[in-house]
Amino acid sequence: MNRIEIFDTTLRDGAQSEGISFSVNDKIKIVKLLDGFGIDVIEAGFPGSNPKDEELFARLRDVKLSHARLAAFSPTLRPGEEPSSSQAMAKLLEAGTPAVVIFGKASSEQVREVLRISKEENLRMIYDTVRYLSLAGKEVIFDAEHFFRGVKDDPEYAYAVLDCAADAGADTLCLCDTTGATVPSDVSVITKKTADRYKDKRIAVHFHDDIGCAAANSLLAAEAGAVQIQGTFLGIGERCGNADLSVIMPSLVFKLGFSLGCDMRDLRKTAKAVAEISNTRIRNDEPYIGKSAFYHKAGMHIDAVKKYPPSFEHIDPSLVGNERKFVLSEISGRNTLLDRVRRLVPEADKDSDELNRAVRELKEKELFGYHYEAAEASFSLLLRKVLYKYEPKFTILLHKTTDDYPSANGELTSCSVVQIEVGGRTEMGSSLGNGPVNALDNALRRALSVFYPEVGDMKLLDFKVRVIDASTTTAAKVRVLIESTDGGENWTTVGVSCDIIEACLQALQDSYEYKLLKSSENT
Amino acid sequence: MNRIEIFDTTLRDGAQSEGISFSVNDKIKIVKLLDGFGIDVIEAGFPGSNPKDEELFARLRDVKLSHARLAAFSPTLRPGEEPSSSQAMAKLLEAGTPAVVIFGKASSEQVREVLRISKEENLRMIYDTVRYLSLAGKEVIFDAEHFFRGVKDDPEYAYAVLDCAADAGADTLCLCDTTGATVPSDVSVITKKTADRYKDKRIAVHFHDDIGCAAANSLLAAEAGAVQIQGTFLGIGERCGNADLSVIMPSLVFKLGFSLGCDMRDLRKTAKAVAEISNTRIRNDEPYIGKSAFYHKAGMHIDAVKKYPPSFEHIDPSLVGNERKFVLSEISGRNTLLDRVRRLVPEADKDSDELNRAVRELKEKELFGYHYEAAEASFSLLLRKVLYKYEPKFTILLHKTTDDYPSANGELTSCSVVQIEVGGRTEMGSSLGNGPVNALDNALRRALSVFYPEVGDMKLLDFKVRVIDASTTTAAKVRVLIESTDGGENWTTVGVSCDIIEACLQALQDSYEYKLLKSSENT
Repeated sequence: MNRIEIFDTTLRDGAQSEGISFSVNDKIKIVKLLDGFGIDVIEAGFPGSNPKDEELFARLRDVKLSHARLAAFSPTLRPGEEPSSSQAMAKLLEAGTPAVVIFGKASSEQVREVLRISKEENLRMIYDTVRYLSLAGKEVIFDAEHFFRGVKDDPEYAYAVLDCAADAGADTLCLCDTTGATVPSDVSVITKKTADRYKDKRIAVHFHDDIGCAAANSLLAAEAGAVQIQGTFLGIGERCGNADLSVIMPSLVFKLGFSLGCDMRDLRKTAKAVAEISNTRIRNDEPYIGKSAFYHKAGMHIDAVKKYPPSFEHIDPSLVGNERKFVLSEISGRNTLLDRVRRLVPEADKDSDELNRAVRELKEKELFGYHYEAAEASFSLLLRKVLYKYEPKFTILLHKTTDDYPSANGELTSCSVVQIEVGGRTEMGSSLGNGPVNALDNALRRALSVFYPEVGDMKLLDFKVRVIDASTTTAAKVRVLIESTDGGENWTTVGVSCDIIEACLQALQDSYEYKLLKSSENT
Repeated sequence: MNRIEIFDTTLRDGAQSEGISFSVNDKIKIVKLLDGFGIDVIEAGFPGSNPKDEELFARLRDVKLSHARLAAFSPTLRPGEEPSSSQAMAKLLEAGTPAVVIFGKASSEQVREVLRISKEENLRMIYDTVRYLSLAGKEVIFDAEHFFRGVKDDPEYAYAVLDCAADAGADTLCLCDTTGATVPSDVSVITKKTADRYKDKRIAVHFHDDIGCAAANSLLAAEAGAVQIQGTFLGIGERCGNADLSVIMPSLVFKLGFSLGCDMRDLRKTAKAVAEISNTRIRNDEPYIGKSAFYHKAGMHIDAVKKYPPSFEHIDPSLVGNERKFVLSEISGRNTLLDRVRRLVPEADKDSDELNRAVRELKEKELFGYHYEAAEASFSLLLRKVLYKYEPKFTILLHKTTDDYPSANGELTSCSVVQIEVGGRTEMGSSLGNGPVNALDNALRRALSVFYPEVGDMKLLDFKVRVIDASTTTAAKVRVLIESTDGGENWTTVGVSCDIIEACLQALQDSYEYKLLKSSENT
């Protein structure tokens, strides 16, 4: 089992992504997280580029890592510049990381069109930079920018660049697909040729996903002799993203038999934490770790998976910290439902009354337009109700919502009043809002918080509206999905009605019920 | 330039995706869209599985396609079953498509563990099914389920399955990576070997994205001899999705030099329309067509791209219908807009005030969340207003909508009042409704019909609600699209607001205005 080194650049290249912006504290959290997971090299920032990264490296000096080596990123010297008088080099050494990543152009076209210097000066800059840092005792990783395109256009120069970094003492030569457009067949051939040429150096690869091949290219490169894979968690990165380590790592281990420093059972947990700090999400369809990665909807598939999991599952989901889920829908069968019923009524079997009741209720609801596959929280409430395992935490006695133009202030105004009852006591809440649904949400929350201050921890995350049977147009039923969180867990609820306000109210009511159920079970 | 055939299964395999649910009308729209784009084979459904797909195929018989061949999907005969007495075969033939897709298991392990029949009976089922359909004059595409895993585990049997489908008269042998976990290096070797073995048959491939390699695997397979690629738009599909045609197609054309039946400049537009109908979105980081695919954040990158676009752009974005940086919409290009302005102001040119005003207004509206691509009627009204070529047919003076539970009758009741003005005269309309939007629609129509009896010819056909920026949840803006008809013509209008009732009112108002404009121009 050959060992592959994993190099994470979420904090440097990933930070280029639209909408991503890490504070110094965020970055330190991520460094600790990645180190705990077993990542080998963590590229934490670009010390010459901004004071935030300088502060980061200063603070990282006091952080003890158990496994990972830190790396700092920098371009080569500038044209005509000498190492001893270079500010960038001074900042880089000041960062005090054991490893440094130096990027230089490996495409003669880029040198001519973008740097607009001679090919020789580019080589000189690379040589002097790498040499200087190598003599300073650093582990030098040389990022050969535009290498794959460079080799196709002008192989002689692309290899001259690598020769020069190698001669200057670089430990690792990293082949970069900077515009992310190298096709897999070229990656195999070029990586193999390059690994054969530099037998005494470590070969790394760095892919971007502009043609959707970054993960595959990383796997092919590992098979062709690369020993270090660079990428980011969840593929976070500029444009279409970087190579997605959370997908590549399990494939390296489980599909190609390489060994890594990380325990894959912690993969999903780690990716979730990175997503949380980055204020992004794991996509539902993310390979291995997404919520839908082991979800099954079609009845035929569900039967097959139950008989024999490998029929539609390429790996045991627990190996990457994920779990199997059967989508609840009209096309899924009794057996799935029985598993769920048994969690509440352990003695239920396939002929028991409880199961029949649950099947009937679910069919009726789905016929009406409910859709539980994406609303697990509503489904678990429904099941409790059907099985008489549930006592509602509150009852809505009345609600009234008005949308009025022009109102007293001359504008369009939405206003809502809700009255609820909890254990014989009633309470009213009222609110204006940005639209009727928001007014209703505010009013309900106010009334609830009198009895249940914990609803204050709750936040709504996402809101979806879908018209069912659009042919009845404005009288059509709508299905509303609301996703909520309390910081620890996310859950989704559903409501269906011809009245959109009523549909939202159902989904909101389920969401609050679910939260209150959770907190009552935790105490 | 070798020609690759594109086989789209958005409507069949894509429909397995969590959260996707197409109406028959949606499916017909997608068929027409894909045909117009130049897709070669469209797998529209699975006639034996549900009555909705039977209705679909019945209605598709009257739809004239200009380019594509339709295909219907079915399993093989069941164990012991004969073609002449098979319900599935009867339904399949009844569907009346020129092509049929038959799937059968190509893995002996699957035959043993899931089908639990003998290897010979599986071969018999495949042979008899393919033979029967081939003799019935169908183009038969045989989907060899689990083929890639089958070849690794028991190559003799996997090839026996293909031999049998080939002997029975299958036109195309499709190699399926059913669990989506085949690594790229295996795909190259196995596809090449298989294509060499069946030189007189067409080889297709069908990948899933469970290890994030479906796009790369499709490209490698094309290089290894596959001549048909199966997949879905945006990779819509169960678990981690199917091979994403919107990514694979441009790579086939621009990176590997194959030719297709589609014009790639329409790629983004087509994908957007498919997303709209599926109620999904194009991911921002989607290769080629995502909003961020040609977005640049880092200063260094922006400079480089300005000096020399290929430094961080692997392709000219216009070749796939995308653009660098901000994407407003297809119709926001000045030239396109100029054509439209000239229809109303023939003397306008590219520097004229009219065009500038229209560009500014459109950008503002799109920034706010309006979307005119699917709402041509609203766009034409907007343009008339901007160019001072429009006199509104009515003005809404006030509207008030109440949603009340429990109302006098103990039920939830929606009630709406609208006052309009036409030529100095005012009129009120009021109505109850199935929900507040329906009440409002009824009330407005009553008031209007006093002045304009022709609104009686109008019917609303379709209604879509889409939450924009879901992170503000119940206060989020919604975009409403309403499709209307008067028997002769269908038109679509749009409204955007944080208040869903207001958004619907805007779309309704535009729809009535458009109808009245039409009838005033016809007289």
